[in-house]
Amino acid sequence: MLEVYGDIHSGNCYKVKLLACLLDLPHRWHHVDILRGESRTVEFLALNPNGRVPTVVLADGHSLWESNAILNYLADGSDFLPGERRLRAEVLQWQFFEQYSHEPYIATSRYILRYLGNPPERHAELAARRAGGWSALAVMEGHLRRHDYLVGARYSIADIALYAYTHVAAEGGFALDDLPAIRAWLARVASHPQHVTMNQFA
Amino acid sequence: MLEVYGDIHSGNCYKVKLLACLLDLPHRWHHVDILRGESRTVEFLALNPNGRVPTVVLADGHSLWESNAILNYLADGSDFLPGERRLRAEVLQWQFFEQYSHEPYIATSRYILRYLGNPPERHAELAARRAGGWSALAVMEGHLRRHDYLVGARYSIADIALYAYTHVAAEGGFALDDLPAIRAWLARVASHPQHVTMNQFA
Repeated sequence: MLEVYGDIHSGNCYKVKLLACLLDLPHRWHHVDILRGESRTVEFLALNPNGRVPTVVLADGHSLWESNAILNYLADGSDFLPGERRLRAEVLQWQFFEQYSHEPYIATSRYILRYLGNPPERHAELAARRAGGWSALAVMEGHLRRHDYLVGARYSIADIALYAYTHVAAEGGFALDDLPAIRAWLARVASHPQHVTMNQFA
Repeated sequence: MLEVYGDIHSGNCYKVKLLACLLDLPHRWHHVDILRGESRTVEFLALNPNGRVPTVVLADGHSLWESNAILNYLADGSDFLPGERRLRAEVLQWQFFEQYSHEPYIATSRYILRYLGNPPERHAELAARRAGGWSALAVMEGHLRRHDYLVGARYSIADIALYAYTHVAAEGGFALDDLPAIRAWLARVASHPQHVTMNQFA
């Protein structure tokens, strides 16, 4: 049984839940409240010395962390990860884009607004994260104007990685009204018959 | 022939040069001066809409970007990327750790100090990046106290990814004097007979 440690409202954790459901993968979810320090306990740091969620423990007892590394592990051999070398690298390209150029702006803005309640001492930081978020969304919009999915014309874990925080970008102050290709892609991802939402597990 | 667009003093670009040399991979290097806007031209954005280096163009004409995606593509099937599913995921785990928890602190501090010349308007930002950098180094030190390499007891592209900015961490204000396991690992990586340094290409 796959043991997943996370918070379903974290996009990074939701990625793992979504893929597990798409793959019909039996798993047990352990809620970790990061605001209460539950990702910094001695027990948790033994699983992930970097103290972050999601972290999983595989059936063989090994732990694995970093959301996109977990997606690549779980999707290996499935329809959600291409077998071809170049396409696999393109999946990683979009996942590294997500973690470096998208998540630090959009997810962090959402965290400040939604988790922390938009405290005054974070207002300057929030403002500083606007430009990076819009740049990342512009890169996605340009690509999705010409492609139905991010890689290889089919739904893959590259889409899961970027869906996670893009579909709740408005909660970080990024309304998608002027980004029609992204909105069409979000609907396409969500139309999968085994799609699950964050809220149905909350 | 592999075409590489980058700046050899960028750790992210150096990763590609180092692996290409370890693999004896013929490649042509195209210097991109990001401070002069050369990664934001129409021509460059056609290769990488995110406007970052390194970006490569493969022999088949496809472009690929994000340093660690490029490493995974080039190392596929070689001794520098394990074939086993879980170990491949562990390589990715450390590479995503590098891009999210290490590079934004250590590489960005070095960029502010070395490339931008430590301008007064960036001093507050520089100070804010100290804690994250030391946390990332502590995670590495803990792991390398018990392991010779990051994954599977042998030199892999996980090591290349983290070597790139760790070996010049002092240029970002992170002296490694109190991190003996990291220093021993840096020496181990650099002892490979085909190792190349940043400076020999500058």
